[in-house]
Amino acid sequence: MRIVAALGGNALLRRGEPMTAAAQRANVREAVRALTPLALEHELVITHGNGPQVGLLALQASHFDDGEPMGLDVLGAETEGWIGYVIQQELGNVLPFEKPLATILTMVEVDPDDPAFSNPTKPIGPTYSEAEARRLAADRGWTIAPDESGWRRVVPSPLPMRIFEHRPIEWLLDKGTIVICAGGGGIPTMYKPDGTLGGAEVVIDKDRASSLLARQLDADCLVLATDVDGVFLDWGTEDQRMIERASPAVMRGLDLPVGSIGPKVEAACEFAEETGRLAVIGALGQLDEMVAGRAGTVIQG
Amino acid sequence: MRIVAALGGNALLRRGEPMTAAAQRANVREAVRALTPLALEHELVITHGNGPQVGLLALQASHFDDGEPMGLDVLGAETEGWIGYVIQQELGNVLPFEKPLATILTMVEVDPDDPAFSNPTKPIGPTYSEAEARRLAADRGWTIAPDESGWRRVVPSPLPMRIFEHRPIEWLLDKGTIVICAGGGGIPTMYKPDGTLGGAEVVIDKDRASSLLARQLDADCLVLATDVDGVFLDWGTEDQRMIERASPAVMRGLDLPVGSIGPKVEAACEFAEETGRLAVIGALGQLDEMVAGRAGTVIQG
Repeated sequence: MRIVAALGGNALLRRGEPMTAAAQRANVREAVRALTPLALEHELVITHGNGPQVGLLALQASHFDDGEPMGLDVLGAETEGWIGYVIQQELGNVLPFEKPLATILTMVEVDPDDPAFSNPTKPIGPTYSEAEARRLAADRGWTIAPDESGWRRVVPSPLPMRIFEHRPIEWLLDKGTIVICAGGGGIPTMYKPDGTLGGAEVVIDKDRASSLLARQLDADCLVLATDVDGVFLDWGTEDQRMIERASPAVMRGLDLPVGSIGPKVEAACEFAEETGRLAVIGALGQLDEMVAGRAGTVIQG
Repeated sequence: MRIVAALGGNALLRRGEPMTAAAQRANVREAVRALTPLALEHELVITHGNGPQVGLLALQASHFDDGEPMGLDVLGAETEGWIGYVIQQELGNVLPFEKPLATILTMVEVDPDDPAFSNPTKPIGPTYSEAEARRLAADRGWTIAPDESGWRRVVPSPLPMRIFEHRPIEWLLDKGTIVICAGGGGIPTMYKPDGTLGGAEVVIDKDRASSLLARQLDADCLVLATDVDGVFLDWGTEDQRMIERASPAVMRGLDLPVGSIGPKVEAACEFAEETGRLAVIGALGQLDEMVAGRAGTVIQG
């Protein structure tokens, strides 16, 4: 089987945990334990989130910012390097030495006409006081919004349209290489009016990008790993119960809470509808059972 | 021909130039103009320096440092993402859309018994006052040394022993992909006593790593691009003259100034000796002539 496995941001850094190299290593090791059975038996592509990491790099960079801040494309590329390296190295430490591994930098195209551009919602980078946020917004054309702890820059989260490196990724898979790619939803890029490609000041949803990648690679299964066992009805109530199996049509008809589960369900449904194959949402520790359709919420057309 | 072309750090950022995204883009575009004829005609691997970039990231990170600084492995991985992205995107903007491009994260092994570990010489990261440098040295076991503007951390620069990703790089070349890799000499890694691979607090010379890569890939030509036309005798005097062609044995016998040209000559000689093929040191703008043996200092066995 050819599998695309997307690791949630909290597979790399747990909520509330300080972002130290040691904590990140420990979490990656746990993710690697869950991935190992898949890596030994299947063609495997690993994608991952980058939220806390890109936040840290944006915070670090903001203090050395001479009016031309590092773009979200460059920061995204940096996190693909950082996180890809740690995952690849830890995987290499548990797999046979001969197993080829590669981390491929991944650029993803977004459409300048995506409606998300008129409604930026994704908070990014450091928290500012209201005055400072308003000054930056005026200076740089940022959109800002308050959250619980202060004001932050918010950026659009448009849909991924194309993954430029899908052929190199496929060629490496054909050779038995485990490929790590599309970290953080991919480096956001966009065609400019002059016809050249440049960076885009947006964040692309990692699960939507993983779903697109799985379709481009003709994958047999898309697994979206998170810290809950699956998709729940009546979540947080006494009546909460996990959906074990459903069609994309049924999943789309559900009244699910917004937040991170929405894009996951959307990403899984897109893959299941277009391919007729298995998309599974569930807990990292159950990856092996999920790809067999025996754990998580299994979505199939 | 299969060519490995190494871009000097100043191909990406000129001496004294502020490190803005715009300056870097402009320099990368110039490098891309020089690379384009090679990219259209040959199998091409592009490697690059990362000195100013890793310095900036280390400086940014040092201000958010809670006692566990980002390792040189992680910073190196970040720069492979950052610089690789910009080179790949700008190359893609001038080549036919169909030409496959890929940036591969590259880990390079060093030997813990390398004599460089007992003689750290490579300055890295921010400049400190003497008192601050001494405090950090005591706290963290750093080696420090004074330079013109203050005190800096110095780290070893051991020889590269192995490039882990040489098979994926080769497979992509076989498919006609232009591969960007081994940025900054590669992410420095080292086997620990427990047999697992981890990061190494060292800097690997980019030209030595490029030479090793060229040998591992059975390349036909290694070109080391810099900002001078070649290797000069009596450099800086009225008698200075460029060496147009020499054997590795002759080159090794020369009394050349230390600095950046030394590792370049060493890297070129290693390749020429082991393969009997062309290694050329010269100016970025003459790449096309250099691979034909018509410009730069041509070293052949």
